Amino acid sequence: MSNPFATPQDAEDAYYDAIEEKDLQALMAVWDESEDVLCLLPMMAAQRGKEAISKVWDPLMQGDIGLDIQTKHLAWIETPELAIHLVEELVKGPGQTEAQPVYATNIFRKSGLGWKLLMHQNSPTPPPPGLHIPGMEM
Amino acid sequence: MSNPFATPQDAEDAYYDAIEEKDLQALMAVWDESEDVLCLLPMMAAQRGKEAISKVWDPLMQGDIGLDIQTKHLAWIETPELAIHLVEELVKGPGQTEAQPVYATNIFRKSGLGWKLLMHQNSPTPPPPGLHIPGMEM
Repeated sequence: MSNPFATPQDAEDAYYDAIEEKDLQALMAVWDESEDVLCLLPMMAAQRGKEAISKVWDPLMQGDIGLDIQTKHLAWIETPELAIHLVEELVKGPGQTEAQPVYATNIFRKSGLGWKLLMHQNSPTPPPPGLHIPGMEM
Repeated sequence: MSNPFATPQDAEDAYYDAIEEKDLQALMAVWDESEDVLCLLPMMAAQRGKEAISKVWDPLMQGDIGLDIQTKHLAWIETPELAIHLVEELVKGPGQTEAQPVYATNIFRKSGLGWKLLMHQNSPTPPPPGLHIPGMEM
């Protein structure tokens, strides 16, 4: 069992470190113990509960594909027991020179075990100006 | 000023009703009064603060384009002062017979003014099985 995270940021740092290091156990230690936990990765079905979340991350943590993730905080809402971080993730896969930006919302909850990740949701960032997307003329 | 919303669900119902009725004032009355508020619509930049959110919704509320939005709750996390709803939105535009599903996370906060919307984030739902997406082989 890892040490409790003293701040939401400690938990968030551990989350991204675990992904870069492909350490599933470290990643799962960041998640809250309750069955409330929820993970929405790009283009995947919503995963509820630690077991389902572990299953969806397991294959992503295998193999030699290295990911480099830079994060930038766009917004920050903190209350004594819940913290909501909106982050721009710049994810570079192997051989990629340009990072693909995505938005991520990370929600942390404080308990006796310190701050833990309750919810992670990804969304695409807007396309570059001038790019035409059918159906977006509205 | 609208009546305070007694539950997160009252605020959420008012939010979707306002979009269907194209009532910008009713929509903005659902949002929390603080500058913490955050809105992430599909393929748009993140909007922070009521004024920015109002500006992004204003053109969407103009004209004769009718939207039909059905919602389905996928998950629900509630604490005494914050409520997080993960919703599948089925959005039908004019002439569309099939609804486009998106995931939405709605976060509500309780204050002296009742429950108000603090954050709204959209994500695409997964593509149908068998659809090939370049870069998703990982």
